[in-house]
Amino acid sequence: MGYFHLMFPEVKEKGMAAIPRLVAFTSEHSHFSVKKGAAALGIGTDSVILIRCDERGKMIPSDLERRIVEAKQKGFVPFLVSATAGTTVYGAFDPLIAIADICKKYKIWMHVDGAWGGGLLMSRKHKWKLNGVERANSVTWNPHKMMGVPLQCSALLVREEGLMQSCNQMHASYLFQQDKHYDLSYDTGDKALQCGRHVDVFKLWLMWRAKGTTGFEAQIDKCLELAEYLYNKIKNREGYEMVFDGKPQHTNVCFWYIPPSLRGVEDSEERTSRLMKVAPVIKARMMEYGTTMVSYQPLGDKVNFFRMVISNPAATHQDIDFLIDEIERLGQDL
Amino acid sequence: MGYFHLMFPEVKEKGMAAIPRLVAFTSEHSHFSVKKGAAALGIGTDSVILIRCDERGKMIPSDLERRIVEAKQKGFVPFLVSATAGTTVYGAFDPLIAIADICKKYKIWMHVDGAWGGGLLMSRKHKWKLNGVERANSVTWNPHKMMGVPLQCSALLVREEGLMQSCNQMHASYLFQQDKHYDLSYDTGDKALQCGRHVDVFKLWLMWRAKGTTGFEAQIDKCLELAEYLYNKIKNREGYEMVFDGKPQHTNVCFWYIPPSLRGVEDSEERTSRLMKVAPVIKARMMEYGTTMVSYQPLGDKVNFFRMVISNPAATHQDIDFLIDEIERLGQDL
Repeated sequence: MGYFHLMFPEVKEKGMAAIPRLVAFTSEHSHFSVKKGAAALGIGTDSVILIRCDERGKMIPSDLERRIVEAKQKGFVPFLVSATAGTTVYGAFDPLIAIADICKKYKIWMHVDGAWGGGLLMSRKHKWKLNGVERANSVTWNPHKMMGVPLQCSALLVREEGLMQSCNQMHASYLFQQDKHYDLSYDTGDKALQCGRHVDVFKLWLMWRAKGTTGFEAQIDKCLELAEYLYNKIKNREGYEMVFDGKPQHTNVCFWYIPPSLRGVEDSEERTSRLMKVAPVIKARMMEYGTTMVSYQPLGDKVNFFRMVISNPAATHQDIDFLIDEIERLGQDL
Repeated sequence: MGYFHLMFPEVKEKGMAAIPRLVAFTSEHSHFSVKKGAAALGIGTDSVILIRCDERGKMIPSDLERRIVEAKQKGFVPFLVSATAGTTVYGAFDPLIAIADICKKYKIWMHVDGAWGGGLLMSRKHKWKLNGVERANSVTWNPHKMMGVPLQCSALLVREEGLMQSCNQMHASYLFQQDKHYDLSYDTGDKALQCGRHVDVFKLWLMWRAKGTTGFEAQIDKCLELAEYLYNKIKNREGYEMVFDGKPQHTNVCFWYIPPSLRGVEDSEERTSRLMKVAPVIKARMMEYGTTMVSYQPLGDKVNFFRMVISNPAATHQDIDFLIDEIERLGQDL
């Protein structure tokens, strides 16, 4: 939900009653925290409109515009588009430039959820995937994901200076005294929702000092290279089906493992219901053996598939090879 | 603000528009996060009614009841009382039993902010200060404060089983699959507002295993004993004035240091305006010398006073003695 008090500071004192019925837009592949935010902020999940995605999981700008126009016709007030840079399942990057154009046209706050994909900005090779992010009003970025900072470390970046302060400050006189002897701009507690949480960023700062930007870049490039290695190894391998075509944009590699008994079986309800059970059984066995652990999930009409995500820079090609062998070892009898 | 979705689950889908104008009550000494929560949740800070405190900083129950009746007469819906167990400045404990009786009478959710004082529940000697907390609907407790767990570690305890889940769950199918092979009640992400944050409690668990309840108890008893030691040393000492009478209930010891030039000077506007500047100068010097650091703040009509808070169990009587010497060394020329 980004941080909608940035747009409606009057809510601070008066509550939601002070403003009109708002609607927000995000893609059907976006993170569930968008709806969660809408629930918590008093907007309501019903006011979050899900925009259709293409086959790669990217928001379709024409559908976004259509739904904005539709909402306005109903008398609602479109106030926020939450685009995603690196979706949870596919690792997709929404077309930020096209979305920025639409937000500008309709005067809507553009938020980019770069929690997962924001780390790619550290890479000269991959940062183009976020082109357009510089036009956003706000961006979330979780260095505790792709950057490897220990939980929690989550940043909200806002374009307009002073906005965070005007939305959040409560002037608690016992804490934010004006007669201190040092530069008061270091008192960040009154600028954030959670007074004490900003110490989390210290972990990032330490790592950045130690690794440097090029250190982070090398780490991220390596993870993406490993994802591509996995993709290249399985895309034409017997017993694998990719969930979407083409090279992954992030480190998410989404695939089905097809056990021997299901290979060559033509698409049918029975095949689907058997395939659905494959990934959960293999994952359960992975956990029992303690050798590896890969997420799986269904998505829309696609039954349970594996989503291999690489964010550990200590991973190697051998680990990927092992993973493939292990899936085949654990799944061959299914 | 506690967690008001627990009371109004319909807000989840419909937003604040689904419910009547709400008002919450908390004491004038409570933490500013109550207002911050009201702002964030869309209730608005104007809907937080501040209840008067006695001279020790405890909420006055008769004033609470009067303001509840008044709000109802205005057509507002009182929905929450946020009592404090361990206020930030005085370390005061609101009278929880009397507050529980009022909440019961008017059918209002009783929340206890035990962020600071909750740790005293680990102490057989001090836990009586929270008598009545067992009647609360919800309690916050920050083991990262009095218990010494590294930031962040903050718990919200709710009486009614299943409530957190019904308020927060979004059934993200890519994350909370129902076909996992283990007990799904371990998937706590869908029960909390912040999906990934619950790992914070792991730090508390580790410490608890290492220290045991008696280890925490010894630690807390020691901090309270040190606070009493400080109080006893300065209460009748030349150059000190206590902000409130009587032994501290928590480890907060609130006092003015009166430099020699102000001793014996009778109460006047000039004395007040000079006294106001004493604590900031001493604190600045403490920071410059790097020897110690004690918070100060004004409160209501009371000008800047020191608030010494002890939460480090490694502190000793010698540290307290040093603190007193240091204040006098740094403040004697003021």
